[in-house]
Amino acid sequence: MHSAVILLLCTGAIFFVRGEPVSEGDGVHPRSPRVKRAPGDTERDCTATPQYIPTTAKDTTDLLRRLREGMQSSSHFAGSIQAYIIPAGDAHLSEYISERDQRRAFISGMSGSAGTAVVTNDGSGGGKAAVWTDSRYFLQADQQLDCNWILMRQGEEDVPTIEEWLVSELGTGGRVGVDPQLVSIKLWEALEEALTDARIRLFGVPHNLVDDVWDDRPGPSQAPVFPLGLEYTGKSWEDKISDVREKMTEENADALVLTKLDEVAWLFNLRGSDVPFNPVFFAYAIVTTDTAVLYLDTNKVTDDVTSHLRLGCTTGASCVQVAAYDTLLTAVEALAADSTIRKIWISSASTTYAVFSKVPESKQILDASPVMKMKSKKNSVEQQGLKNAHIRDAVAKCEYLMWLEDAVPGGSVTEISGADYLQQLRSRQRDYMGLSFPSISASGPNGAVVHYRPSAETNRAVTTSDVYLIDSGGQYRDGTTDVTRTLHFGQPTDYQRETYTLVLMGAINEFLQVFKQGTFGIRLQQAARAPLFSYGLEFGHGLGHGLGSFLNVHEDPYFRGTEGVPVGEEGTFITIEPGYYEDGQFGIRLETLAMVKEADTKYHYNGRTYLTFEPVTLVPFQEKMIKFDMLNEKQLTWLNDYHRQVRETIGPELQRQGKDDVYDWLMKNTQPFETSRITSSGAQPVASVFFIVIAVVCSIFST
Amino acid sequence: MHSAVILLLCTGAIFFVRGEPVSEGDGVHPRSPRVKRAPGDTERDCTATPQYIPTTAKDTTDLLRRLREGMQSSSHFAGSIQAYIIPAGDAHLSEYISERDQRRAFISGMSGSAGTAVVTNDGSGGGKAAVWTDSRYFLQADQQLDCNWILMRQGEEDVPTIEEWLVSELGTGGRVGVDPQLVSIKLWEALEEALTDARIRLFGVPHNLVDDVWDDRPGPSQAPVFPLGLEYTGKSWEDKISDVREKMTEENADALVLTKLDEVAWLFNLRGSDVPFNPVFFAYAIVTTDTAVLYLDTNKVTDDVTSHLRLGCTTGASCVQVAAYDTLLTAVEALAADSTIRKIWISSASTTYAVFSKVPESKQILDASPVMKMKSKKNSVEQQGLKNAHIRDAVAKCEYLMWLEDAVPGGSVTEISGADYLQQLRSRQRDYMGLSFPSISASGPNGAVVHYRPSAETNRAVTTSDVYLIDSGGQYRDGTTDVTRTLHFGQPTDYQRETYTLVLMGAINEFLQVFKQGTFGIRLQQAARAPLFSYGLEFGHGLGHGLGSFLNVHEDPYFRGTEGVPVGEEGTFITIEPGYYEDGQFGIRLETLAMVKEADTKYHYNGRTYLTFEPVTLVPFQEKMIKFDMLNEKQLTWLNDYHRQVRETIGPELQRQGKDDVYDWLMKNTQPFETSRITSSGAQPVASVFFIVIAVVCSIFST
Repeated sequence: MHSAVILLLCTGAIFFVRGEPVSEGDGVHPRSPRVKRAPGDTERDCTATPQYIPTTAKDTTDLLRRLREGMQSSSHFAGSIQAYIIPAGDAHLSEYISERDQRRAFISGMSGSAGTAVVTNDGSGGGKAAVWTDSRYFLQADQQLDCNWILMRQGEEDVPTIEEWLVSELGTGGRVGVDPQLVSIKLWEALEEALTDARIRLFGVPHNLVDDVWDDRPGPSQAPVFPLGLEYTGKSWEDKISDVREKMTEENADALVLTKLDEVAWLFNLRGSDVPFNPVFFAYAIVTTDTAVLYLDTNKVTDDVTSHLRLGCTTGASCVQVAAYDTLLTAVEALAADSTIRKIWISSASTTYAVFSKVPESKQILDASPVMKMKSKKNSVEQQGLKNAHIRDAVAKCEYLMWLEDAVPGGSVTEISGADYLQQLRSRQRDYMGLSFPSISASGPNGAVVHYRPSAETNRAVTTSDVYLIDSGGQYRDGTTDVTRTLHFGQPTDYQRETYTLVLMGAINEFLQVFKQGTFGIRLQQAARAPLFSYGLEFGHGLGHGLGSFLNVHEDPYFRGTEGVPVGEEGTFITIEPGYYEDGQFGIRLETLAMVKEADTKYHYNGRTYLTFEPVTLVPFQEKMIKFDMLNEKQLTWLNDYHRQVRETIGPELQRQGKDDVYDWLMKNTQPFETSRITSSGAQPVASVFFIVIAVVCSIFST
Repeated sequence: MHSAVILLLCTGAIFFVRGEPVSEGDGVHPRSPRVKRAPGDTERDCTATPQYIPTTAKDTTDLLRRLREGMQSSSHFAGSIQAYIIPAGDAHLSEYISERDQRRAFISGMSGSAGTAVVTNDGSGGGKAAVWTDSRYFLQADQQLDCNWILMRQGEEDVPTIEEWLVSELGTGGRVGVDPQLVSIKLWEALEEALTDARIRLFGVPHNLVDDVWDDRPGPSQAPVFPLGLEYTGKSWEDKISDVREKMTEENADALVLTKLDEVAWLFNLRGSDVPFNPVFFAYAIVTTDTAVLYLDTNKVTDDVTSHLRLGCTTGASCVQVAAYDTLLTAVEALAADSTIRKIWISSASTTYAVFSKVPESKQILDASPVMKMKSKKNSVEQQGLKNAHIRDAVAKCEYLMWLEDAVPGGSVTEISGADYLQQLRSRQRDYMGLSFPSISASGPNGAVVHYRPSAETNRAVTTSDVYLIDSGGQYRDGTTDVTRTLHFGQPTDYQRETYTLVLMGAINEFLQVFKQGTFGIRLQQAARAPLFSYGLEFGHGLGHGLGSFLNVHEDPYFRGTEGVPVGEEGTFITIEPGYYEDGQFGIRLETLAMVKEADTKYHYNGRTYLTFEPVTLVPFQEKMIKFDMLNEKQLTWLNDYHRQVRETIGPELQRQGKDDVYDWLMKNTQPFETSRITSSGAQPVASVFFIVIAVVCSIFST
């Protein structure tokens, strides 16, 4: 995948999981009785006397006191607020968050990627504090939170939602504050609705209260912004803006506000590195029928950027202005007040409530951003770039797999050292710009933790008696990669081979699909899940995601999609990544990037063309994990064709790079599987038996 | 199918198809120039001088004059209205409409099932009149409309939507009237929103203005209401009401208003015949935590009904009251005013605006009706009843197919005579209560008209040189049936066999699916469409629909479903009906009813069970239409298993009924297809050749 995205993107939903109001408690949920811990334990024990707090926990007593002072009275607003919500996100609702934006982690100490904190203020310096997070972070939370915090274990029974808890804590009336720059429109509206019945007001605090108490908050990123040439983007920013204006005309929009970092980067053919793993920079954009303004840290407007954007002009369709990042809200207010601007297009899914609330309802067009769709359909230059990046990425990956076959039996490889070595191999490839997400390098039971990421505490050896799963990807100037293969360096069990084969069959089924223009992902899921279902097995994550051209590793479309960006569009790239996870034992995932292209069909109903998937990731599947007798003939033919394509595409690149040993390894590992090995039809063995019987009978007679 | 439902149910959507405002015209749309017709033509010609109106058209001049008088001033409301919308539906948003409710057909003369009329009033006795309908009824409309009417050909370019036309006709301001008892909540809200910008008010006229001018309007149906015993329903109405109350408690609803006729009939285990084909009666119901009231024509409360409902009680959980049909709105108003009733549950999809508007927003629970879900999951008695009904139905169907093989070459069978004979055969089966929808009996090109229904004008002979499609079903006391088979009584072309086989492969693929509890239909479509797609072919209708237990032939779930009633629920019945339509040539559809049941899987992930489809329709597929070399082994095995099940289930019933000739026909037509015929894998023939070669060599040697 990596699969993290599926859970991350579900945070909004998890937020509203129903549950019963919780009784009050100190530190832990009272209905989950806890065993008393001895001092020295790694987890806190808030029920012990005295309470036990490990050294890994953050002392938040003073921070909370200062935060509550700000809630009680502030120069930024009149009156007091009774509760303050601290989300995990940034002002662009990004998946990866810069350190400067990790306010929830700062205030609570809990550094997991998902989670929301709420602090109440009883008006006399006291109150409660709670963190909602999901099962990935329960252990970590108990190591990092002190006893000022209640841990709300989302997904467990009787755990209240944030709004249920707020109602039970606040009773009726009062104000709940939140930074409107950090919540989506949908989240705000859901919160507001849930609180209305209790006559609690949701209040957009016009200043972040955590920032006030964050003395050593990191400064803004100084990472440079740089242009990406036409040889990578395939389309000038001028042409992109002109395309955007066309869509605006179709929707009768006079202005478009872009808030997603990757959308702004894509539109202007600029990249940066203000957040981890995604080559983007903090920015907004507003496009009108005759202006285009890029809002960013103006210190980052280097000569390169100035010349790329041809700054200095004052009017004209291709004239861009730059403005300071923090003037965006003022600019939106000005648009809202401008009588010549009738309709302002804001992206329904990715805009914060702060931006949304500046636009009066009569002027709103709330719809998916046009850039989201345009970005997902890659032009021919981007298509070739992504394919090329995947060829070089496959070189590194094959090198790694070959190395593992040697090194693992030696006993020196761990999840972390393996992932580090793979990163090193990738970094030697041309145009490498970094990892596209933290590598999931998982041995044995760790592979069954879908969102696993090795740490010093969990690091396991990669051995000859475990299944090993490696899900990783790189950023290259010409494309982003994301690939998963699962291997065994000893003797896999029959069950491991059976489940691996079911997962592989799912991937192949998906690649064999032919579908209509405009088909949404939701219709295309079952084929990949069917082999597992038919065995009474399943996996709980999404089937795959779109991926950027040297941009975010996760973007639309998704296979769960029912609207917005369809999978059925030529030039769309999407990962196909079925898996199977046996809790406490092993995990299997096979992730192969696909490009949507025209299918070669015998007929063309009403002159129509149909679509199918072409593999872009070219890394072999491990033969010893495959039970060939489970594959039908079409699946086997696909597999042989795929391995032939791997040989023919990656082979020459390996030779070009002078990696003869890897070339030999690749040739050995992409041999066609012979049809004679297939026994699924039953016909062949029966025939063979007949053949032998006849031959024997015949030899008896002829003697 | 019959497929009609798909278009019928889309009427709301078609209503809002975008188009450009139309210029004014007289009778026909001005941008579709028409050839001048000579008098005697079957279609009107409003551009001729004098205008040509066929005798089949209705003279609506006087009716429209009187209607406009009612729009200008009425005792039912103050002021005038400038336009009046006349929908095709009834107060229960039914699929099949009683004659008494066919107001649009009455006022315009156009009797097609789909279509909406709008009449404007210029204040001085004049105005315009227009009918929107889809391509099925374009010809019919031009035969039945006089030149007072503009025909709005939905789906053609530049045809305005109703609201676009209203805005262009009325300009700004004014009132558009509609009977709020005849429009859904969704339709009302969409209309209202579309008219708001032009400051046109949508006005719910509290009396139907067409009824005022309909002098010879048929009276209310006198058809009896009768109880359906436990041997058919499997659950008493008392238990059903108690289940409903449980769901109400879960949703915190104090009252539930049921407006769908089949929901009311199901809940009280009563049936009737007030509308064609559906065994329902005009009624509403309101259930509260301690009362249950059935609103119907009290003349229909016979002794049987009285005793079935144990009327006469005054209180108690199982005490039902009956009230007059037309007191429903008053009763809803009373609920709305009752301070002990906090929340009233109304079905979001199937309630009219008239009912909805009586409930203040603060009291509304707008959600799918709980009865819709309960009804779709059949209990064991209903399951067995549906299976038994399909066995007897298959007897009639097999008898018919055998008869056709003899009669068609004789040249005496037409679409209509064939369908009539099939109806006769069905009527001889036990517990037969009528057809479940008008039979689609279609020969040659008529089969490609998806919503075809033979009429005197279109009736074709069933011949040995045409493909014949028969889609029909019956109502039986123990279940409703709906089955389609496609046949050829001469020599089908290779293309006909190829497309038939693709459709069959789609059906088989669907039956082979294994899926999760709670899966919605949308995820399960692709498998059935995939074989056609892979050949560059497709069909444009839904894959299938739920079906009632001696109730409506169309009910939830649908394969297009994304929410509401899932397909993935044990005991759900749904048709699987892929098709292929070659315009002007032939149509293929294979419709087989399926029951959702637990799948037999090797494993059970986390203790879960998975689901699959079991065939309920047991009628053979025609061997000569199948290209066996296109089937893979799994598909062939399924087909042989299916035919074995047909033999073993329908065979004994044929013997029991003494139909030995049909029994012989069935045995002949359900022979297993031998594996040796399969050549798709290539393995078998190669093996056979080897076998022969060896045998020959061997015999040479042994001599």
